[in-house]
Amino acid sequence: MANSKYSVVLGNLGNTRDRFCSGYKENPTTLEMLKRAAQIPQVCGIELVGTWDIRPDNVREIQTALKDYGLQCVSIIPDLFANRFFWKGSYSSNDAKIRREAIQYTTKMCDIARELDCPLMNLWPGQDGYDYLLSADYENEIAWLCESIAELASSHQDLRFSLEYKPKEPRTHSYMARTGDALLLARETGCTNVGITIDTGHAFIGGEVVGEAIVLAKRAGNRLFHMHFNDNHTTTDDDMIVGTVHSICYIEVIYWLRRCGYTGWLSMDQYPYREDGANAIGESILWLEQFSAIVDNSADEITDLLRNQDPIATSRFLRRVLAPGGGVSEKILDEIEAD
Amino acid sequence: MANSKYSVVLGNLGNTRDRFCSGYKENPTTLEMLKRAAQIPQVCGIELVGTWDIRPDNVREIQTALKDYGLQCVSIIPDLFANRFFWKGSYSSNDAKIRREAIQYTTKMCDIARELDCPLMNLWPGQDGYDYLLSADYENEIAWLCESIAELASSHQDLRFSLEYKPKEPRTHSYMARTGDALLLARETGCTNVGITIDTGHAFIGGEVVGEAIVLAKRAGNRLFHMHFNDNHTTTDDDMIVGTVHSICYIEVIYWLRRCGYTGWLSMDQYPYREDGANAIGESILWLEQFSAIVDNSADEITDLLRNQDPIATSRFLRRVLAPGGGVSEKILDEIEAD
Amino acid sequence: MANSKYSVVLGNLGNTRDRFCSGYKENPTTLEMLKRAAQIPQVCGIELVGTWDIRPDNVREIQTALKDYGLQCVSIIPDLFANRFFWKGSYSSNDAKIRREAIQYTTKMCDIARELDCPLMNLWPGQDGYDYLLSADYENEIAWLCESIAELASSHQDLRFSLEYKPKEPRTHSYMARTGDALLLARETGCTNVGITIDTGHAFIGGEVVGEAIVLAKRAGNRLFHMHFNDNHTTTDDDMIVGTVHSICYIEVIYWLRRCGYTGWLSMDQYPYREDGANAIGESILWLEQFSAIVDNSADEITDLLRNQDPIATSRFLRRVLAPGGGVSEKILDEIEAD
Amino acid sequence: MANSKYSVVLGNLGNTRDRFCSGYKENPTTLEMLKRAAQIPQVCGIELVGTWDIRPDNVREIQTALKDYGLQCVSIIPDLFANRFFWKGSYSSNDAKIRREAIQYTTKMCDIARELDCPLMNLWPGQDGYDYLLSADYENEIAWLCESIAELASSHQDLRFSLEYKPKEPRTHSYMARTGDALLLARETGCTNVGITIDTGHAFIGGEVVGEAIVLAKRAGNRLFHMHFNDNHTTTDDDMIVGTVHSICYIEVIYWLRRCGYTGWLSMDQYPYREDGANAIGESILWLEQFSAIVDNSADEITDLLRNQDPIATSRFLRRVLAPGGGVSEKILDEIEAD
Repeated sequence: MANSKYSVVLGNLGNTRDRFCSGYKENPTTLEMLKRAAQIPQVCGIELVGTWDIRPDNVREIQTALKDYGLQCVSIIPDLFANRFFWKGSYSSNDAKIRREAIQYTTKMCDIARELDCPLMNLWPGQDGYDYLLSADYENEIAWLCESIAELASSHQDLRFSLEYKPKEPRTHSYMARTGDALLLARETGCTNVGITIDTGHAFIGGEVVGEAIVLAKRAGNRLFHMHFNDNHTTTDDDMIVGTVHSICYIEVIYWLRRCGYTGWLSMDQYPYREDGANAIGESILWLEQFSAIVDNSADEITDLLRNQDPIATSRFLRRVLAPGGGVSEKILDEIEAD
Repeated sequence: MANSKYSVVLGNLGNTRDRFCSGYKENPTTLEMLKRAAQIPQVCGIELVGTWDIRPDNVREIQTALKDYGLQCVSIIPDLFANRFFWKGSYSSNDAKIRREAIQYTTKMCDIARELDCPLMNLWPGQDGYDYLLSADYENEIAWLCESIAELASSHQDLRFSLEYKPKEPRTHSYMARTGDALLLARETGCTNVGITIDTGHAFIGGEVVGEAIVLAKRAGNRLFHMHFNDNHTTTDDDMIVGTVHSICYIEVIYWLRRCGYTGWLSMDQYPYREDGANAIGESILWLEQFSAIVDNSADEITDLLRNQDPIATSRFLRRVLAPGGGVSEKILDEIEAD
Repeated sequence: MANSKYSVVLGNLGNTRDRFCSGYKENPTTLEMLKRAAQIPQVCGIELVGTWDIRPDNVREIQTALKDYGLQCVSIIPDLFANRFFWKGSYSSNDAKIRREAIQYTTKMCDIARELDCPLMNLWPGQDGYDYLLSADYENEIAWLCESIAELASSHQDLRFSLEYKPKEPRTHSYMARTGDALLLARETGCTNVGITIDTGHAFIGGEVVGEAIVLAKRAGNRLFHMHFNDNHTTTDDDMIVGTVHSICYIEVIYWLRRCGYTGWLSMDQYPYREDGANAIGESILWLEQFSAIVDNSADEITDLLRNQDPIATSRFLRRVLAPGGGVSEKILDEIEAD
Repeated sequence: MANSKYSVVLGNLGNTRDRFCSGYKENPTTLEMLKRAAQIPQVCGIELVGTWDIRPDNVREIQTALKDYGLQCVSIIPDLFANRFFWKGSYSSNDAKIRREAIQYTTKMCDIARELDCPLMNLWPGQDGYDYLLSADYENEIAWLCESIAELASSHQDLRFSLEYKPKEPRTHSYMARTGDALLLARETGCTNVGITIDTGHAFIGGEVVGEAIVLAKRAGNRLFHMHFNDNHTTTDDDMIVGTVHSICYIEVIYWLRRCGYTGWLSMDQYPYREDGANAIGESILWLEQFSAIVDNSADEITDLLRNQDPIATSRFLRRVLAPGGGVSEKILDEIEAD
């Protein structure tokens, strides 16, 4: 979009571990990753992950580096997934001490956010969920999850808390699994500074259409706070380059973000296990630019298509905007229309 | 459950059409289906589908038959899916006249519900959704869907309106797709007489765990109004006999229904294309009785298992309650525990 | 492709039934459908479905109409799915009389194929599979399926028999479910005139990549006999317009068809429930033409990309060929490459 | 089964890494794992993973430990997934040197197998596949994969090579993805000592019914060489305790293994991230014993059920064999049958 703001989750340039291999590449240092991030065209913002990227001991260092590279810290993602202490849950743990620890740790990260002028905490409590049936007290645990987030949000009203939902992984089931769940939870906190993060890939694996999810978030009180972008083959969180599996749905995403007045960041969240990280992120941004150009040129036409509910007209439009610089198809299109 | 109330969607005993075959069996008449339903052990309630089972012209006849067979009408399901007039949506149609027609038609069905002493309208607006990307105005359509339901619910405060969500089919995407979506919509109507119907099979294909969905409905203001039961192979709404694919999740469902104070009906909703309909429904009820007996005997033990979060203990419990009358496994279990 | 041959399954222009609604539109007659098919640009071939389109009683009539409209009958699809007689299986039925009936019926359809100069029988035995676990004798039934097909193929060596696999529907599990299964079965018949039909949508719901499936069929003895095209949202056989969900995979399909020397028809197989049938098919063909133009222009470049195994290079290529006539993205691309 | 032979993949007792957390527990040493494995009731066999468990430098040590603990090495799984050298493929790599290295490494592992009297190489070339579309030359790579395996199998005719298929992970698509693919590949090697390993969880995520897969392997020349057991929620390789999600399908698996004359090992392959490893494996074995007892008692009855194709009769059977020692359900069953 003409004035899109692009950012990246810093770890995208580092961690390439999966459960079989401890890493396909050498891990660069956080400062090296910052340097590489700053070189990606269009990237102006960074999301920092707790433990991996940002800790009380390196705040000054990171602050300086951000300044040097002209990068803004757009979100902090507290580490509620890599720390084995939270292996069976953080905010929803059935152990009150662990919940307290999760809140205190997040509070420290909120302090860091303030120091870095970062306005948003992206909460992805990956361990808050369950693996087996009949092995979790959903009622208690969801209540605790809600209370913990409410406590954090009400005591940090200058910050926004954005709940990143995901159907599964690392647990077989997450409590914040889908748009609807996350929005219900956000509302139940009673705090207007709690909203949601839509990760396009998480939405795909939940069977959601992101355009519709954006609308649901708007209806629930303008609660779309943040966007993560990546692509996948629909069933697993493959965290691939945007636009390499799907195309059309991203045009729709851009359209609805704009129509619903989203002014936040477009942040890339990928796992380039076997690709160059900076270039993989750069590709995603270029695809988004390309899709945005289509929306820029055709916003009114798209609105008409939505209201006409004629998939054939939509298909014609899409063939035109995805065509390689005119050519054979246009002539054939003319033929058809002459019939 | 000791005092479970079982019902059946009447069409289960009739329609066996799929998109390839116009019907694998002859369709019995509505009265024949009522007779067969009444013969299924434990069945005391019936859900009637608009057009197929119940219309203004046959209310008297059905009323008499219900009385004769000692059956209660537990829900009416307005026909918002078989009538081609609503082929592109009913409550959410982008044509105001069609929305008005959908509301008027439902109002007529509400009148019938009152005549039949039926307390619940089960709304499954199957055509309210979309098939193609960039071919529906989600914002407008969801707003209309919400307004239509709010109008119906606020003008019929003596009836409960239960939204049956389903991820897809007949549209590739339904607006009421998942528990969270349906609960958000119910709350947005501003009416306390709007709640949700969980169909176990719909939940499975959405990747949901029904036990958790029951908890979410309770949290959103005690909005679980109705339950539909069937089984499937997880990816398609196969509408099979309960317990023929999954077992353990139904034990969990019964546990949570009871713990959350559900007092509604357990209604069977299947499509026995190639099986005897009455027996297929009877089997589902017998499975539910069997699972309920387990919960009856072990409710406290289950509560402990949920709080212990030890899948190995849960597995031991499940092996015991699913064991065919003791035998080899118990001895081996003793061995292990002696280690 | 410059010399692609396009055809359509005739029923695409008619049947719009699903299991809830008996039809969203009026069914045209077979002759009307033929007329409309002939008007779709590029369509030169027709696939006729038994019972619905072609029967012993209308062969002459169809033959005349085909001639009049200049259409070739490219395949006959015997009706092994709409006839309730085969409700629990045809070639694999556990009743020898039903298997015999299925073979005799197919033999009649083979006779018709010869009369119509149609070289290919597209076998989609939709009822040959199972719904429930522990309710089918896989060993016997697969053996019967194989024997039936072998008998047909060996007694009609002038015809090709193409097995159309599909993971599920109308049964919850089909015996010919995936590329590998179908190829194994084809080989086990011992007949070189048995091959497979890849339906792109069936492949998607089976988690397959069609490009790879084409290669597998080549390896198994050049057994790709026929192609059906449509698109879907990956989990259900939505039978949508090609290119309205996915784009990139079709480029890959065209590439591999060409590289593997496929000379058969590109046949459209859709279910335009709520769209104009002829235009929906026309759109699919236009998308395929557009994707083919890309392959025409870039076949060698694609071959290089496959061998380089660099998804970033592939992404750059794809952005270029899917770009709306140059523009912003190219400049940014230059920037990145100047780094 | 009365004479089932149970084994375990040794790493089940160790590695608990996922892509977010470097390990939820401390990794025990290989010798500690062997000790714990030997203590699991019924476990007599061990599968050793290359790099992790078995290397040229520790063969003697492992040999001694196996003897001491009375364990048999039932398979060796060469490390073609944890070694980053093979990050883009091993046997199918487009770099001839890497293919050669993969073959030489496997040859070394074959030598070790002989030293350990291990009759089977379980080949799971996890990196042989692809992530992105248009980024792999399927034709070349599958040919190389086939050649590599053929070379290994033909030069080690005293060993069996069992291809473990899996639809995805760590790559988004594996070349050996499904039963059919793996069987085709096995046949194309031209070696009778190449067969397949069915991992129940891999089959589930591929949409397969394991009972049918066992039949396919038998039809393809008795090529079922090995079995891996675990459970999952159907869409991801969760590697959970057998019987904690599904029950009925395992009864079917045991039935078909027996009917098809399988005499190999039943090996547990799980990832107990948050559970005690030895007990998690023990539970799986106890479930399998329980399911086997059902098959022992009812093999003929099951055969009849398969041939009757009556899901209602199957359901009645299943309710009986999964009932907790008789009770309420039986009386109700009698009622129904009295109707």
